[in-house]
Amino acid sequence: MRILLINPNTTPAVTEQAAAHVRGLIPAEIVPATGRFGARYIASRAAAAIAGHAALDALAAHVAGCDAVYLACFGDPGLLALKEVSPVPVVGMAEGALHLACTQGRRVGIVTGGALWRPMLEEFVAAQGLSARLSGIRTVAPTGGEIARDPDAALGRLAAACRTCAEEDGADVVVLGGAALAGLAARVQPGVPVPVICSVEAGARAVVAAAGLAAGRPAPPPTESAGLSAPLARLLAGPPGGGAA
Amino acid sequence: MRILLINPNTTPAVTEQAAAHVRGLIPAEIVPATGRFGARYIASRAAAAIAGHAALDALAAHVAGCDAVYLACFGDPGLLALKEVSPVPVVGMAEGALHLACTQGRRVGIVTGGALWRPMLEEFVAAQGLSARLSGIRTVAPTGGEIARDPDAALGRLAAACRTCAEEDGADVVVLGGAALAGLAARVQPGVPVPVICSVEAGARAVVAAAGLAAGRPAPPPTESAGLSAPLARLLAGPPGGGAA
Amino acid sequence: MRILLINPNTTPAVTEQAAAHVRGLIPAEIVPATGRFGARYIASRAAAAIAGHAALDALAAHVAGCDAVYLACFGDPGLLALKEVSPVPVVGMAEGALHLACTQGRRVGIVTGGALWRPMLEEFVAAQGLSARLSGIRTVAPTGGEIARDPDAALGRLAAACRTCAEEDGADVVVLGGAALAGLAARVQPGVPVPVICSVEAGARAVVAAAGLAAGRPAPPPTESAGLSAPLARLLAGPPGGGAA
Amino acid sequence: MRILLINPNTTPAVTEQAAAHVRGLIPAEIVPATGRFGARYIASRAAAAIAGHAALDALAAHVAGCDAVYLACFGDPGLLALKEVSPVPVVGMAEGALHLACTQGRRVGIVTGGALWRPMLEEFVAAQGLSARLSGIRTVAPTGGEIARDPDAALGRLAAACRTCAEEDGADVVVLGGAALAGLAARVQPGVPVPVICSVEAGARAVVAAAGLAAGRPAPPPTESAGLSAPLARLLAGPPGGGAA
Amino acid sequence: MRILLINPNTTPAVTEQAAAHVRGLIPAEIVPATGRFGARYIASRAAAAIAGHAALDALAAHVAGCDAVYLACFGDPGLLALKEVSPVPVVGMAEGALHLACTQGRRVGIVTGGALWRPMLEEFVAAQGLSARLSGIRTVAPTGGEIARDPDAALGRLAAACRTCAEEDGADVVVLGGAALAGLAARVQPGVPVPVICSVEAGARAVVAAAGLAAGRPAPPPTESAGLSAPLARLLAGPPGGGAA
Amino acid sequence: MRILLINPNTTPAVTEQAAAHVRGLIPAEIVPATGRFGARYIASRAAAAIAGHAALDALAAHVAGCDAVYLACFGDPGLLALKEVSPVPVVGMAEGALHLACTQGRRVGIVTGGALWRPMLEEFVAAQGLSARLSGIRTVAPTGGEIARDPDAALGRLAAACRTCAEEDGADVVVLGGAALAGLAARVQPGVPVPVICSVEAGARAVVAAAGLAAGRPAPPPTESAGLSAPLARLLAGPPGGGAA
Repeated sequence: MRILLINPNTTPAVTEQAAAHVRGLIPAEIVPATGRFGARYIASRAAAAIAGHAALDALAAHVAGCDAVYLACFGDPGLLALKEVSPVPVVGMAEGALHLACTQGRRVGIVTGGALWRPMLEEFVAAQGLSARLSGIRTVAPTGGEIARDPDAALGRLAAACRTCAEEDGADVVVLGGAALAGLAARVQPGVPVPVICSVEAGARAVVAAAGLAAGRPAPPPTESAGLSAPLARLLAGPPGGGAA
Repeated sequence: MRILLINPNTTPAVTEQAAAHVRGLIPAEIVPATGRFGARYIASRAAAAIAGHAALDALAAHVAGCDAVYLACFGDPGLLALKEVSPVPVVGMAEGALHLACTQGRRVGIVTGGALWRPMLEEFVAAQGLSARLSGIRTVAPTGGEIARDPDAALGRLAAACRTCAEEDGADVVVLGGAALAGLAARVQPGVPVPVICSVEAGARAVVAAAGLAAGRPAPPPTESAGLSAPLARLLAGPPGGGAA
Repeated sequence: MRILLINPNTTPAVTEQAAAHVRGLIPAEIVPATGRFGARYIASRAAAAIAGHAALDALAAHVAGCDAVYLACFGDPGLLALKEVSPVPVVGMAEGALHLACTQGRRVGIVTGGALWRPMLEEFVAAQGLSARLSGIRTVAPTGGEIARDPDAALGRLAAACRTCAEEDGADVVVLGGAALAGLAARVQPGVPVPVICSVEAGARAVVAAAGLAAGRPAPPPTESAGLSAPLARLLAGPPGGGAA
Repeated sequence: MRILLINPNTTPAVTEQAAAHVRGLIPAEIVPATGRFGARYIASRAAAAIAGHAALDALAAHVAGCDAVYLACFGDPGLLALKEVSPVPVVGMAEGALHLACTQGRRVGIVTGGALWRPMLEEFVAAQGLSARLSGIRTVAPTGGEIARDPDAALGRLAAACRTCAEEDGADVVVLGGAALAGLAARVQPGVPVPVICSVEAGARAVVAAAGLAAGRPAPPPTESAGLSAPLARLLAGPPGGGAA
Repeated sequence: MRILLINPNTTPAVTEQAAAHVRGLIPAEIVPATGRFGARYIASRAAAAIAGHAALDALAAHVAGCDAVYLACFGDPGLLALKEVSPVPVVGMAEGALHLACTQGRRVGIVTGGALWRPMLEEFVAAQGLSARLSGIRTVAPTGGEIARDPDAALGRLAAACRTCAEEDGADVVVLGGAALAGLAARVQPGVPVPVICSVEAGARAVVAAAGLAAGRPAPPPTESAGLSAPLARLLAGPPGGGAA
Repeated sequence: MRILLINPNTTPAVTEQAAAHVRGLIPAEIVPATGRFGARYIASRAAAAIAGHAALDALAAHVAGCDAVYLACFGDPGLLALKEVSPVPVVGMAEGALHLACTQGRRVGIVTGGALWRPMLEEFVAAQGLSARLSGIRTVAPTGGEIARDPDAALGRLAAACRTCAEEDGADVVVLGGAALAGLAARVQPGVPVPVICSVEAGARAVVAAAGLAAGRPAPPPTESAGLSAPLARLLAGPPGGGAA
């Protein structure tokens, strides 16, 4: 299985970190792709909106030859748009991690970096229909980008936030969310009384599980566009001579 | 009052049509702006995701000197991202039209062009918290773009869909949604037993009502980026020497 | 535009205060009307139930010649009943202020006077379908009536409650609710980190925005009654010789 | 046990019919009271709003010496206001019948007379928190008043509506709602595949069950008023020399 | 009226305590039955799952000659299964007590013994559709079994938890839940500012109220089984020669 | 990885069928276990309640040496009870299949055999928090047991129900649910316009994905019991000398 791992921010180091973490955990070849434009780290609604376009752009450029797409940003910018146009299954990091976490506990907590992510993730969880399963979202002050640059400095805060999820919010399981936090769950676990799930790993496991099931879905109608990259314009325009489903 | 009217698709004729319709209805100067890149007409999730970026790009380029922003696409791509970074109030066409419609009827129907808009608008309404007020969404086969090119051909279908909203779904009021449908509500009204609201007009009235109330809100933290237009990169980077609120 | 402003309590001074505040803000002639019977100030469910009747009674007596009705009591007693029988559009103060506030922030807080209003307003917000948008309701000990008699004494408490909405409840915007609080929002704003909206002004702006859109709706069936004021009995009985829609 | 049965419309014959039906079914003395003002039959929002005031007025005049209050109008106008000021427990007909019906079936249907009751009852059920238990509301064309005048003519339509609740809406149990329909459930039952509950009886049984449990609750603060009946003004004013709880 | 009171745990003393408490309160003969297998006291999900089977087993053995069934365990294990196969009406203790409590207050609190009951009861309340009416669930450290063995030691903690429901959670009424707590509500009441309802009594009153209304419902299809008690196997197999409804 | 596959009905042929289907699809050793008591096929609430006990009984007897438990009955009787006491992760067939299906489509349809399963599954989906993702549940007349005995006869009905899910209910993906339906999804797929997921396979894939993530959770308190199988009594009693977590 070949999986296109899209990191829709514009920092290749984060893409590499996530891809490296995943390679040892799932039986698949990972094809990494980084956003061509947008924020260095995604920590606001504006950055996430741009990242939706960047993720589509990356998918159009790199999906050929892949069996599934892993949208590897916790918050899944552009997720439904990618599913709409992708010729192969797409699973988002938050989507996959949260659904798997729901099989591990009644109430799921989320810990991530960057205060602006909290309302964005609340809305994402609501759009997934999972609000009743969410015990709460706790953000730590450093953003994902800052955590990636100095994970050791953030470990204590992340562990404390995970404990708060369990002890105050009643979480049965906590998802440590963010591509930049790949691998930190295991280091945070010892001080937390409930399981801590690494979103990068859980999302990847969900890609593998879901991709095996997938079957064809109707293609969207062809869309005429202007000013886009050639691969994205071609993807929107649909197959040559093809009509809408 | 100067209002920046952003049409985030890439068809200037639609921008002009919406701006012209609004100019006679509200006491404000209209500054029109069209998306620099993306779909000619927005009728899919992929097109809407790209339009969120395009709307941010247009806001960054043209907001200087304006008192409010009217995101004039029914479905409001990028709405919360625009609100996050805009120095002046932003109201979306669907947002404003639906909240006003809620004061005109208990259950609100929506009629628009293009079948893929239905789930997208259902999710938009849910994100607004208004699902309980929605009687249902009826789409007609031609997309907004096709209706704009030949409105007379679409009038009968639009009127029939509005009647269905009232008679089968129990709508007390119907919003005819879409920039490309500016001015059609009045033509559709005679055959419909409940009020039909023009989304272009209602959204504009909501901009005027809300803009008068507005007060400062905290600025988002500065965001470093790559590959964006200069105005958008500057807007994300925040004021020179400025910090986050 | 002529707007009938109904204050359904029995204190004309509150009616005058609200009418005076509104006159400078919206381009309309204000026709004030005060309840003929009921509580001096509405601060309980019983007082609100009686006020629904009093508001209908006032509408029946004074609506002739008006273009719209502003039900100017935050909590909107009898709102849907007035909409049912009114020949012109009706907007309530809480209804209008809350829907406009939703365009100004994701999560809306409410501050008002009188502890018994909290559950009543929670139910009103739920009936509007807006519970998911509400960050919370904070009441201050003095009722609206007491605040009207000595606003300076209440300012500190109101400002503190607004701050709590923002800082503890996560409100993006706060509505200062109550006819008796007309004009206090601007005085409270300086100490509050998010916009504070005056319900009297916002409701009035919503009346203007919505009234422009309105179109006819079906009349209710004629209702035979006993013991009511002559204008209200006539309004319920319907037009002479008229049938139900 | 002495139960004050309040019929808040202004038709004493309906009061007598409900009281007579209840007397044989529950071990209590029934004290009937009819509204002093308002609609002959309640079949609209305006009539229901006025009835809330009329029910308060009747409670104030007649509650002395009673152990419980039965608000005997299906739709329960003024229910929470009566509970607020009553010195003894109050149970509404729809409230009591629906909660008991929930112990008899997972999904509860409602059949009543008068088309305008449907949205009003949907909102009542939602306010009770029971929307998820409701299979649907079916109204028959004659209003409760018309059914009371000629029940035989309505039986067929009522039975058909009950069958539809069971067969199309999936109701496990149907409540036949309305004071004017007292005693019709047994006549309708033979043609309906699920139990049909008489709202007048079920509400009365709930009064008996709940009244036995009741204990004191805090009194509301005293309310100054104008233009009300003397008993109601005294009830709102609270006990002489008394303060709020 | 003969009521089969099923205590689905395996401690006959609790059965006797509940039966004795109920006998003085309702006009019915009580037939007590205790679970043949399962936990001594039910305080976990596993114990409750087994108790569902044990309650079915007890019903099959003892329902003959009874007019109604009272499932006398707060949490109602197997409730819907019992309703499915019982030839007479079944009401659960939590079901009946909560629906009656809803007529006594807008927001209902629950206090019971045993920390694991909290999520189980939250799910039960949600399944009843009553989550919006619940102010919260407070558990005290001793389980129901421990309270039954030494009620005096638990009274202070129960009263404190009831006060917290009222003062912090906003409960208007509190249900003291658990067969083992029969009779403690009256002892706890003096220190609590809102009514405290005994679940054993309230459930029994609901059985009486609901049983009077009941009518036939369709029988489930016959079910072939293995390894069950003879009465339960016969109950599942359906009447001799009978078919499904 | 060793997975205990529990079929909680009492028909070993169904256990074998499910185990055989799973063996070729996931990289794990399957240890099959069948219920010792209860219904031959589970098609009612009573049968499902008994099956919860039987599943616990089977887990207690066979979990030693296994790495995860697959509760292989669509409807997952006793799921949360098994998770509570199991020393290793437990995933239910409906739980796992539905969460994976949510990554494959916005709205998920369910098709299964046996009319009584519909409300039971609706409640299961609600308890998972996924009601908003469910397009609807369609049951075919033959029960799972009947389908297992003659799958060819049922294929047409299953395919028709799947098509209805897609075409009338708006499902983007359909789960064909039931252990007895193992392997039928692929045969039904050709006539259905959206992906059809085999619940037996999808549940097994979810077990594999989730089991890899699992970490320790607190043990429940020890429970004294009577009349249970020795392994189950020991499992409830907890480790020798062990206390609660």
